Amino acid sequence: MSFNTYGHLFRVTTWGESHGPALGATVDGCPPGVPLDAAAIQVWLDRRKPGTSRYTTQRREADEVEILSGLYEGQTTGTPIQLMIRNTDQRSKDYSQIEDKFRPGHADITYWQKYGIRDPRGGGRSSARETAARVAAGGVARAALGVLAPEMTITGYMIQMGDRRIDRDRFDMDQIDRNPFWVPDAEAAGEWGAYLDGLRKDGQSVGAMIELRITGAMPGLGAPVYAKLDTDLAAAMMSINAVKGVEIGEGMNAAALTGTDNADEITMGPDGPVYGSNHAGGILGGIATGQDIVLRFAVKPTSSILKPRRTITRGGQETEIVTTGRHDPCVGIRAVPVAEAMAAAVMLDHVLLHRAQVGPTPRGRIGQP
Amino acid sequence: MSFNTYGHLFRVTTWGESHGPALGATVDGCPPGVPLDAAAIQVWLDRRKPGTSRYTTQRREADEVEILSGLYEGQTTGTPIQLMIRNTDQRSKDYSQIEDKFRPGHADITYWQKYGIRDPRGGGRSSARETAARVAAGGVARAALGVLAPEMTITGYMIQMGDRRIDRDRFDMDQIDRNPFWVPDAEAAGEWGAYLDGLRKDGQSVGAMIELRITGAMPGLGAPVYAKLDTDLAAAMMSINAVKGVEIGEGMNAAALTGTDNADEITMGPDGPVYGSNHAGGILGGIATGQDIVLRFAVKPTSSILKPRRTITRGGQETEIVTTGRHDPCVGIRAVPVAEAMAAAVMLDHVLLHRAQVGPTPRGRIGQP
Amino acid sequence: MSFNTYGHLFRVTTWGESHGPALGATVDGCPPGVPLDAAAIQVWLDRRKPGTSRYTTQRREADEVEILSGLYEGQTTGTPIQLMIRNTDQRSKDYSQIEDKFRPGHADITYWQKYGIRDPRGGGRSSARETAARVAAGGVARAALGVLAPEMTITGYMIQMGDRRIDRDRFDMDQIDRNPFWVPDAEAAGEWGAYLDGLRKDGQSVGAMIELRITGAMPGLGAPVYAKLDTDLAAAMMSINAVKGVEIGEGMNAAALTGTDNADEITMGPDGPVYGSNHAGGILGGIATGQDIVLRFAVKPTSSILKPRRTITRGGQETEIVTTGRHDPCVGIRAVPVAEAMAAAVMLDHVLLHRAQVGPTPRGRIGQP
Amino acid sequence: MSFNTYGHLFRVTTWGESHGPALGATVDGCPPGVPLDAAAIQVWLDRRKPGTSRYTTQRREADEVEILSGLYEGQTTGTPIQLMIRNTDQRSKDYSQIEDKFRPGHADITYWQKYGIRDPRGGGRSSARETAARVAAGGVARAALGVLAPEMTITGYMIQMGDRRIDRDRFDMDQIDRNPFWVPDAEAAGEWGAYLDGLRKDGQSVGAMIELRITGAMPGLGAPVYAKLDTDLAAAMMSINAVKGVEIGEGMNAAALTGTDNADEITMGPDGPVYGSNHAGGILGGIATGQDIVLRFAVKPTSSILKPRRTITRGGQETEIVTTGRHDPCVGIRAVPVAEAMAAAVMLDHVLLHRAQVGPTPRGRIGQP
Repeated sequence: MSFNTYGHLFRVTTWGESHGPALGATVDGCPPGVPLDAAAIQVWLDRRKPGTSRYTTQRREADEVEILSGLYEGQTTGTPIQLMIRNTDQRSKDYSQIEDKFRPGHADITYWQKYGIRDPRGGGRSSARETAARVAAGGVARAALGVLAPEMTITGYMIQMGDRRIDRDRFDMDQIDRNPFWVPDAEAAGEWGAYLDGLRKDGQSVGAMIELRITGAMPGLGAPVYAKLDTDLAAAMMSINAVKGVEIGEGMNAAALTGTDNADEITMGPDGPVYGSNHAGGILGGIATGQDIVLRFAVKPTSSILKPRRTITRGGQETEIVTTGRHDPCVGIRAVPVAEAMAAAVMLDHVLLHRAQVGPTPRGRIGQP
Repeated sequence: MSFNTYGHLFRVTTWGESHGPALGATVDGCPPGVPLDAAAIQVWLDRRKPGTSRYTTQRREADEVEILSGLYEGQTTGTPIQLMIRNTDQRSKDYSQIEDKFRPGHADITYWQKYGIRDPRGGGRSSARETAARVAAGGVARAALGVLAPEMTITGYMIQMGDRRIDRDRFDMDQIDRNPFWVPDAEAAGEWGAYLDGLRKDGQSVGAMIELRITGAMPGLGAPVYAKLDTDLAAAMMSINAVKGVEIGEGMNAAALTGTDNADEITMGPDGPVYGSNHAGGILGGIATGQDIVLRFAVKPTSSILKPRRTITRGGQETEIVTTGRHDPCVGIRAVPVAEAMAAAVMLDHVLLHRAQVGPTPRGRIGQP
Repeated sequence: MSFNTYGHLFRVTTWGESHGPALGATVDGCPPGVPLDAAAIQVWLDRRKPGTSRYTTQRREADEVEILSGLYEGQTTGTPIQLMIRNTDQRSKDYSQIEDKFRPGHADITYWQKYGIRDPRGGGRSSARETAARVAAGGVARAALGVLAPEMTITGYMIQMGDRRIDRDRFDMDQIDRNPFWVPDAEAAGEWGAYLDGLRKDGQSVGAMIELRITGAMPGLGAPVYAKLDTDLAAAMMSINAVKGVEIGEGMNAAALTGTDNADEITMGPDGPVYGSNHAGGILGGIATGQDIVLRFAVKPTSSILKPRRTITRGGQETEIVTTGRHDPCVGIRAVPVAEAMAAAVMLDHVLLHRAQVGPTPRGRIGQP
Repeated sequence: MSFNTYGHLFRVTTWGESHGPALGATVDGCPPGVPLDAAAIQVWLDRRKPGTSRYTTQRREADEVEILSGLYEGQTTGTPIQLMIRNTDQRSKDYSQIEDKFRPGHADITYWQKYGIRDPRGGGRSSARETAARVAAGGVARAALGVLAPEMTITGYMIQMGDRRIDRDRFDMDQIDRNPFWVPDAEAAGEWGAYLDGLRKDGQSVGAMIELRITGAMPGLGAPVYAKLDTDLAAAMMSINAVKGVEIGEGMNAAALTGTDNADEITMGPDGPVYGSNHAGGILGGIATGQDIVLRFAVKPTSSILKPRRTITRGGQETEIVTTGRHDPCVGIRAVPVAEAMAAAVMLDHVLLHRAQVGPTPRGRIGQP
């Protein structure tokens, strides 16, 4: 990862500000011959798009992606793919007051201190709007994975919103797409709507916990010791706006366990090793075991709230601020498709890395003569 | 981060296996004119060294670092610094059985699957012994920070071991160096000794939670959006063996908060902005606020335990394994100096990145005309 | 350099094909606070623009750059700068025959073999049109150098076209902008016009040699041993379409010299070291001496000519091809602004690298107590 | 390439100074399962070793490589390979005078100016001794190519020394290993010995031109547009000490040609495309055609000569210097194995890059249905 680029071989550079003419992603390193068009990417952008339910910002963005390069007759050519999304609903008047006042919890003050200049309109580069570019790039990664690792699935869902958690006994993956919160628990989804309505009317916001599950990752995918698959996934999640923690498998709870509790015993199944449990979250030593990869991350509550908060101006005066404008009461909701996109990019990147160093398949065999 | 290298400008490549002739770190990008000698690095290695208390592995390694390049007359020259540590106590007989059997919770099976070849002696490259090289490189980073950011401090300490947690009311930084667990709580330290003795005698192991506190980080240090300071710190921690989760500021708990709870209000002090709280953990939008940077990470219990566990052989036979040999009942203890070292490297790297793009100081001023 | 990106800290990723909707450059790592607008970049693009004289391709491209991100109120903000140039005159009918036939001397056949798919319209990604994006990015680099190294100048000019060479006795930098060939020799310029007219009418093309002179590079700029300033400049030149060789100082002629001939003796002047000659071309050990940096590179003749040439089709049939369409009889002409742009990016990159590792100025002093 | 590292996926970091305890190369990204031992690398080091004939420096270095990591039972494991070479004959007394005086043509003055500190003993990091590490790393690359591209050959040879050139009519690859100059012309070899003896006795030195020929490179190897195969090869050569120019195919001579002269016509042979000539030097658009890759580079005369030369001291005093000590009268001789090693690393790197993005073979077919 460098300033605005991530990935080793599948390299994505995002660009653009919240209220500039456009934003996008420059995607380099995609394999050739991958079927792709704007519609295939738009599917993912539409999942993230603001204004689709009353639980996300009412800013109305078409979020239509244009592919400016890298395709020929419906396939990738192996050259850079430029994905551009025009900003259409910028309403910069909403943001005039924040040119001078720093919004608590936002990057206004740190960008100012670092650079001595910042685009204050909508948070500029630090706006969550940057994540649209991530989702677009993730669409390219998904398409390439469809060719190179078709058995892989990547699914994000919310497991906690504020003090509400899902009930694991009601866990149902089929529910995820049926509610505006991506919650795999129908009952929770119903209750959380009312909860969030109350918070929104109150000008309040709330945090969230997202879980990400990746199935079908080939054993051997990943790499020691600084390009670990879990390191790369964790970094990808931590780079998303408002994320404050990330964990894999047992995660933070691993601190409380004994070695006996935590051991994932191994037996032999008809298709290879079978694990009795998955405390590891599908990764050992930075390399996939072939089990499901399970990780979770926490998103802080939206910092833009209608409650007055103390702050200072650029000139050093103390003042108060109420962040009006259109904001998500729970940014965690839109973090779900963003996290999926980031995970897709990381997984594709590791498919390419493995192919480079080792070849298309795991090199070690178990149980064959 | 590439396979065995981390850092943007201060680049560290570690090399070596647990039972090879030596291991080390190749450090590139260090500023010239930094006072440095082997003794200055040895200080940090001695904190991590195995065999110093009965709570860590009884493997006795001198862990003496030799500096093979990059110095002249006691100062760095700006050229690569090669840090080599000879392995002196290898006892490879202890590890003969694991050539064929995969130890649950270890990377034995995934390295085998990925590469089709692995050095089984002591876990080879996936051994925690690799972290000695990290600590040595961290010593170089500490020395350079001593010149470029002398006001910065980096301190790690244990806050949880198994189900024991410190009492924050007894928190005392001065205690950290006075007990073998790096615990800032004298009473806990006493109790945990007995707890760990019990576990060790039982052939058991236990997880741990480490907190890292960095003071004196200049406002403006860090970078959006994929080289975020918190992203780089999180990746650095996740790359350490056995780490399963990392969080900053409120961390995973941020999911449960409301926006009102989470806002760090800002007022104006004599020297600049003053924050009423530090839910953010000292970083906003990937850039330091100037507050303390606070992060935590969880280390899983040592996978090598004296309890028999089910596993398979390379040939696919089901079997049991008891990992004899010399192991830490709580690898979290030695993770403390390792985490400090990784943090030092990340902080120096960002000092250099900031200097490159912006200059030696923050560019934006608050409160001056 | 990775696939479509160059630079260590000032990183430029170009994207786009000759006949796609647009092409451009994603520029990351630019310092904040640099005055910049589209007009400042357009100046450089206009120098490269096709169709401005009868000696370059008659394709008429407006080559108008749009800046889509990274600016606020006329200054760079330190975030990515997206430079987009729309393709307006694509005439893809001109290129229909080359979908199937490989043009000798072009990358048609190698792109096909590598990727199994290619955009044949105008050469797709391998078209010299890609260099417009380089020139735009170079405009950003020039602007940043204007702030960080205002004393630096970067000037390219043609010294040979086919078998014609300039007369060094008539060398006059002021002539460069006064003729369509960027030749620092008024007499040569006149004669070369007639020469090139003849070649053009004959459907022929010709090679060229360009010299690049960089003045005002601070002693100490550059870096050993693989990021050498001359290595990076050479790579930048070699990456330009049709460049077949690059040399610095005495260059290829150095093979013929003795040590006595080649030594640049040093004396002491009022402002520091003074060199009696510049066989080294301004760089020793990859680091600038402070003398002029002088390099040269050769551009092969345009491969698209009106002479029939033997080739094969994708299906393996032997055939002939005559490349009609609008082409430069000497692509070396337009290589001059491209080389200047690449050099500007490299020089800025090294200014940032030096600032990161050492600070804003050289660290060693000569002659001061 | 960063400061002391080269390669995209096969990454080599060299370290060490001329008169430190050791120097070496940290090699990351090597595929697993490659047969390798110290002897396989020593073969290449012995070709470069000083003191093997009277035409190279009389410094006697054993140049014995130790492999400290990355192997198990005679094969690479995919983890970093540390190659260390002890310096055994350092004689630092020879170099005492140059601590204060800058040797013309050497990097003494620029290292000093950049860093404000330098190891003057034997030139420190800027010594040609660093190339021993390159040759060792090249040995690893050769071994991996032996598995992944066994049909590839990489051969360097000298074609010019001072004003002597080989006669292409006498060109005989079998002669290369039969004379101390790696000259493919038996008659030239005889004559050049006398020529060089004369120069050496006179305390003089001389430049050289080396040609490198790579056969068996698969069509499709390489990558646009900044990781071009010729760009990477050129950068690799330019990074070698004393190299002042590099060219591919027609090289600098391309400036003088017409398009008709330069076209490499294509016909169809039984195994695929056949080219009527190779003006391109085997690479089009940065991607291999499958023809021989042919490049040349010029090495300047050794700067250390026994003729007094004017220079200055660190304190700014004017003085003279005669560089006594043991030096090669023609450093070009030892540049031959170094260039081969660098080329091997670049070619392997591109084999891995191609495998990552495209797969093990070219993707496009010509002539098949």
